[in-house]
Amino acid sequence: MSVAAFSSICFNRAHCSNKELIKQHNVKSHIKCSIKSGITSTLQNNVRVGVLGASGYTGSEIIRLLANHPHFGVALMTADRKAGQAISSVFPHLVTQDLPDLIAIKDADFSDVDAVFCCLPHGTTQEIIKGLPEHLKIVDLSADFRLRDVSEYEEWYGQPHRAPDLQKEAIYGLTEVLREEIKNARLVANPGCYPTSIQLPLVPLIKANLIQTSNIIVDAKSGVSGAGRSAKENLLFTEVTEGMNSYGVTRHRHAPEIEQGLADAAGSKVTISFTPHLIPMSRGMQSTIYVEMAPGVRIEDLYHQLQQSYENEEFVVLLENGVIPRTHSVKGSNYCLINVFPDRIPGRAIIISVIDNLVKGASGQALQNLNLIMGFPENLGLHYLPLFP
Amino acid sequence: MSVAAFSSICFNRAHCSNKELIKQHNVKSHIKCSIKSGITSTLQNNVRVGVLGASGYTGSEIIRLLANHPHFGVALMTADRKAGQAISSVFPHLVTQDLPDLIAIKDADFSDVDAVFCCLPHGTTQEIIKGLPEHLKIVDLSADFRLRDVSEYEEWYGQPHRAPDLQKEAIYGLTEVLREEIKNARLVANPGCYPTSIQLPLVPLIKANLIQTSNIIVDAKSGVSGAGRSAKENLLFTEVTEGMNSYGVTRHRHAPEIEQGLADAAGSKVTISFTPHLIPMSRGMQSTIYVEMAPGVRIEDLYHQLQQSYENEEFVVLLENGVIPRTHSVKGSNYCLINVFPDRIPGRAIIISVIDNLVKGASGQALQNLNLIMGFPENLGLHYLPLFP
Amino acid sequence: MSVAAFSSICFNRAHCSNKELIKQHNVKSHIKCSIKSGITSTLQNNVRVGVLGASGYTGSEIIRLLANHPHFGVALMTADRKAGQAISSVFPHLVTQDLPDLIAIKDADFSDVDAVFCCLPHGTTQEIIKGLPEHLKIVDLSADFRLRDVSEYEEWYGQPHRAPDLQKEAIYGLTEVLREEIKNARLVANPGCYPTSIQLPLVPLIKANLIQTSNIIVDAKSGVSGAGRSAKENLLFTEVTEGMNSYGVTRHRHAPEIEQGLADAAGSKVTISFTPHLIPMSRGMQSTIYVEMAPGVRIEDLYHQLQQSYENEEFVVLLENGVIPRTHSVKGSNYCLINVFPDRIPGRAIIISVIDNLVKGASGQALQNLNLIMGFPENLGLHYLPLFP
Amino acid sequence: MSVAAFSSICFNRAHCSNKELIKQHNVKSHIKCSIKSGITSTLQNNVRVGVLGASGYTGSEIIRLLANHPHFGVALMTADRKAGQAISSVFPHLVTQDLPDLIAIKDADFSDVDAVFCCLPHGTTQEIIKGLPEHLKIVDLSADFRLRDVSEYEEWYGQPHRAPDLQKEAIYGLTEVLREEIKNARLVANPGCYPTSIQLPLVPLIKANLIQTSNIIVDAKSGVSGAGRSAKENLLFTEVTEGMNSYGVTRHRHAPEIEQGLADAAGSKVTISFTPHLIPMSRGMQSTIYVEMAPGVRIEDLYHQLQQSYENEEFVVLLENGVIPRTHSVKGSNYCLINVFPDRIPGRAIIISVIDNLVKGASGQALQNLNLIMGFPENLGLHYLPLFP
Repeated sequence: MSVAAFSSICFNRAHCSNKELIKQHNVKSHIKCSIKSGITSTLQNNVRVGVLGASGYTGSEIIRLLANHPHFGVALMTADRKAGQAISSVFPHLVTQDLPDLIAIKDADFSDVDAVFCCLPHGTTQEIIKGLPEHLKIVDLSADFRLRDVSEYEEWYGQPHRAPDLQKEAIYGLTEVLREEIKNARLVANPGCYPTSIQLPLVPLIKANLIQTSNIIVDAKSGVSGAGRSAKENLLFTEVTEGMNSYGVTRHRHAPEIEQGLADAAGSKVTISFTPHLIPMSRGMQSTIYVEMAPGVRIEDLYHQLQQSYENEEFVVLLENGVIPRTHSVKGSNYCLINVFPDRIPGRAIIISVIDNLVKGASGQALQNLNLIMGFPENLGLHYLPLFP
Repeated sequence: MSVAAFSSICFNRAHCSNKELIKQHNVKSHIKCSIKSGITSTLQNNVRVGVLGASGYTGSEIIRLLANHPHFGVALMTADRKAGQAISSVFPHLVTQDLPDLIAIKDADFSDVDAVFCCLPHGTTQEIIKGLPEHLKIVDLSADFRLRDVSEYEEWYGQPHRAPDLQKEAIYGLTEVLREEIKNARLVANPGCYPTSIQLPLVPLIKANLIQTSNIIVDAKSGVSGAGRSAKENLLFTEVTEGMNSYGVTRHRHAPEIEQGLADAAGSKVTISFTPHLIPMSRGMQSTIYVEMAPGVRIEDLYHQLQQSYENEEFVVLLENGVIPRTHSVKGSNYCLINVFPDRIPGRAIIISVIDNLVKGASGQALQNLNLIMGFPENLGLHYLPLFP
Repeated sequence: MSVAAFSSICFNRAHCSNKELIKQHNVKSHIKCSIKSGITSTLQNNVRVGVLGASGYTGSEIIRLLANHPHFGVALMTADRKAGQAISSVFPHLVTQDLPDLIAIKDADFSDVDAVFCCLPHGTTQEIIKGLPEHLKIVDLSADFRLRDVSEYEEWYGQPHRAPDLQKEAIYGLTEVLREEIKNARLVANPGCYPTSIQLPLVPLIKANLIQTSNIIVDAKSGVSGAGRSAKENLLFTEVTEGMNSYGVTRHRHAPEIEQGLADAAGSKVTISFTPHLIPMSRGMQSTIYVEMAPGVRIEDLYHQLQQSYENEEFVVLLENGVIPRTHSVKGSNYCLINVFPDRIPGRAIIISVIDNLVKGASGQALQNLNLIMGFPENLGLHYLPLFP
Repeated sequence: MSVAAFSSICFNRAHCSNKELIKQHNVKSHIKCSIKSGITSTLQNNVRVGVLGASGYTGSEIIRLLANHPHFGVALMTADRKAGQAISSVFPHLVTQDLPDLIAIKDADFSDVDAVFCCLPHGTTQEIIKGLPEHLKIVDLSADFRLRDVSEYEEWYGQPHRAPDLQKEAIYGLTEVLREEIKNARLVANPGCYPTSIQLPLVPLIKANLIQTSNIIVDAKSGVSGAGRSAKENLLFTEVTEGMNSYGVTRHRHAPEIEQGLADAAGSKVTISFTPHLIPMSRGMQSTIYVEMAPGVRIEDLYHQLQQSYENEEFVVLLENGVIPRTHSVKGSNYCLINVFPDRIPGRAIIISVIDNLVKGASGQALQNLNLIMGFPENLGLHYLPLFP
């Protein structure tokens, strides 16, 4: 990378990866570099961000997105089992970035950090977040704070909730639905990928009483990255490519999260049919949702409701009448594309919703939420068009 | 290939591909070769088979399967646009086989042919089959003779039926359901891939009045080979890999075929919800079927009914309780794996069925049917285990 | 999309795709919008860009990159066979962008256009570029102006060169090698993907006399998007997935382009061994290059030379000693990663180079070149990290 | 499966998978079943085979192939970590087969077993084979007995050879090259996949002095199944799909095995350049081999030599002049397709060879070898055409 390029916008990772810097600089000098470049004078409210659990896919996706964020810089990254390593030894595609080395979470100094993305596994996150300093804003990408009812958490995750007080404080981060609450949150429980793709189209329709809340049937399909980066036999290339299968039939852990959101919209308990499928692709998620319309309601009514709900949203896009959403059309971007179709069976409708499970279904929505918390426009760092083909 | 190997079973293509023969022999000499080898004395009822439309995937799949059939030999293969070419120039993976060159259908001499697989496109098949000699047994893999009601054909295929008299004679080739009728058929309309995967589990359950016939919701997923081999932009590797999408929403042509079969089982009209999805894999099909059980019926009742219906079937396999069928487990084989699961919504069930769309969903079932017509055990030539990984 | 977002940087597509605008605005109003937003006061030298041949992959990739370019806006897009259509009907992943409809090239008004990317097929491009107004800056992504010797063009492309005068003016756009010439060019012949991946590591080594120019053996591997978007049987998903093959053995059209560049570096004629392979992936290209080192030269000498040549380049990255470049690490980005390894055979070396064939191998390098021509930093619009996984 | 089908050929797994049998029978009763069915009278020399290490891909591939073998039956299968499980719980695609449960190798009773395929990991195999009863014929698919020089084994595998006496007895199982020796072997060291694909074309050319043995450059590409079924991060679907990379550059363990075979052909030491690449496909291997021809030798001479060497071989196929071998054309089959092409550099040639790494590169060749050892035609159980698409 040329020094000339470096001088343009330095707080931004993608612009700042001077090769000399890669070797010589740690976080401190990196932040110094952003001052040197003379850019900071025009940037207000720079935010120093920590990424906890940076060796997984949601962590690396946060880093990718932040590379083009004008105000957020990566101050520290943790990965206990990879502590001491450069990020490029864990994620070779980040080799060009001037980033601090991975550290163990116990060695992290949060005094200079403003906010963290918590990309740790379910189950261990509650304890860790409980131990973080009060001044930190937190977006948690695990499932540990998504279920308001801690007894439901215990039922589905097989262990008691370790931070019930924090749970009360946590705001569910479905941005388009709970934007105002998120703005004032300290701890956001970022939604799961399936719940995001399902609630975005269903919540407005349920709120408007346009569909029945009984017998909502969701046939969902996910790319493999949703399962994370852990080395499991069933996720090997040879086991996944050129085939597909349902999994978690009857008892997937995202079911209670979805039902919680739909119940909030309905004002009463909702039980859904939810069957996820593993599709041989890295990214992408589609929910095909089969619903019964309320008496007298027509497909057009559903379409108009969605149009009205999302016309001012940047990231939720209702396609033109008849156009089928495709996961290809959102890969690498924060968009959720939706549409609604008549069923062959009179009175029924088919709703299709697609997202990139790692972006709008995880790290993208997390960034959208942290933008809100920090008072920035929520689309900063999210101006990526889908990568196709 | 060694001559020694050649002497073992010569009517069988896989055994017979002597390199000298590839150059010197045409069909006649090939059949002569099967006599020379002295095997024919032990083989009775050898059947000379024609493959009409051998340049598509169902055609090449027939050839693959016949290579290990003890009694069927390929006498001629047609492909109008590739007439004059060797099969290996159209399908390089068949280069080792001693097969006749492709010819135009108008040049085919059927006098020495006993039976044909018709692998031609929908719409043109009726005229061609109408023109075939009476002595031929025919298994038609197109959709042209699947709908008993010719007006329904016209409605869905946009043209009048060209052979309504033949339609009356055609037997629908869902082997396990209509085995006895198929044995006596001259013309079998081989089922579509989606209809096969859906009817096999549903027909016994409907016949036994265990599920409601209203609100049957089928979310089906197919590999790309189901779309055939024609060069279309939307089927390019770059357009398909790493993404998925629904297609034919509300109006897929397989819907009336499925409904016809279910209505026969129910004794009354059935309208289903049917949404197919294109999955980035070559072969494989899964139907995830959401049904409401009849009052008082439990999941166990569905399981036992399927167990009873298929316990003596080789190719339809009910998995053990709780085991999820995977398309990986049938790739390249004629098996249909099924299972039934409870839904989260009380009173509902989820039925999963997987096949290889090109085998049980097309050429394998076609061979199963021709075996029956010719009086052979129906599994001849179908002893292929799935290819995994 | 929210209006708030819209007000930030409007000349930039990704920021500007207000849904109302999608419906109401044409190019003129779009450019007006960029004025309205009050951003233009801080943006100098806004460039109105035309994309000729916007229905192919290099065209859509240009559009993706420009969406985050601070100074370039899309003024018109042509696609003769899709004229009159919205870009989203051709590329659904661009549905969120506020872009002009596709027009026929004959209907294009270039009076308000400053520069064009020419993404048209080889063979037809010379005539079209000959007919463009003189004021336009042109980056041509076809092969039509890459070979300086027009008789060599005729030999490899089977037709006489249609614009030999323009050929004299054309500058070969291998940015890192010919940067100064490109800055002053009106017509840049953007390099092919294979030639880019091969020349970037070899040119400095040849110039420094570190490797023999006889017996350079290049085994190159490409993703499928290199073949473009035309509907051909051999590019179908079913024909490509789960297999690979060499193609163009002995006679690939990129050979003379590569040899021209290496000969320039060597100061004498170079003939290489070049064998491309089609790999079942959409994007990505690797060249594995087997060379004989000059007498007395060691691997370390090659490494140091590459280090020295590229230490100030942003987009060409020499990896740390021993680290193997992977195509995964450049997908969607403009980087070229290279490294050099000892061979088992003494005196020989193995050089590995990877790029994304659609970015550094096509549209990314094209944008890099237009940035130079227009006097901007060459990395504008190219701050995309690789998308992984 | 129907009982009727069962009565046809029972020793054969594919025919024998009666559902009742799946539940009731163990190995003994299974072998009893083969007697009961009255088939054994026509089958002579039935061979009871053990598969050691049946939970890996080469083990399951052996089982797939044996399902259609007329004389070999599976008597026992071991998998220490999965002992006690049904094969279908480890390989769901084998659910239809009537096979014994997996056992620990220490519990295996070999008294009724005639031969074993040893599909265990490198390094542990020597000890285990040393402990097997003398009466067993053994085909070892690991690398543990491939290198005749035990010091070379120690150098490349980092541990002393544990069975140097057995090493002296072991015959290298490259069937077409060492057929006569294999017929009389008790222990066959089955070749690696890369060595098979490289030696088959090169050995005859070297023996005939048609190519130089210096500067043989092999650029090899492999599907992912070559890495086995162990759960490693770098083999996850997400890490492999849509990208490729070289690996083991300069120091892949197959290099000494290849050089041993080429040196035998040359009568002198040979050092090759060998660079493997991981390709995003499950099966398939291509070696692209760049050689210098001996003085005065032309491409035609290479072609004719290969033609002469392989004209009587069933599984090694020289394609017609100019036809490029494709891995698609061998998937699931035991074929090796080869061809030879002129290079752009005068005096050089390009040789391309493709196999299915799990069949001719492992389990298929192993079965070919056991057929020879047992005195059967070597193609029994190998009559599978490639699966395409």
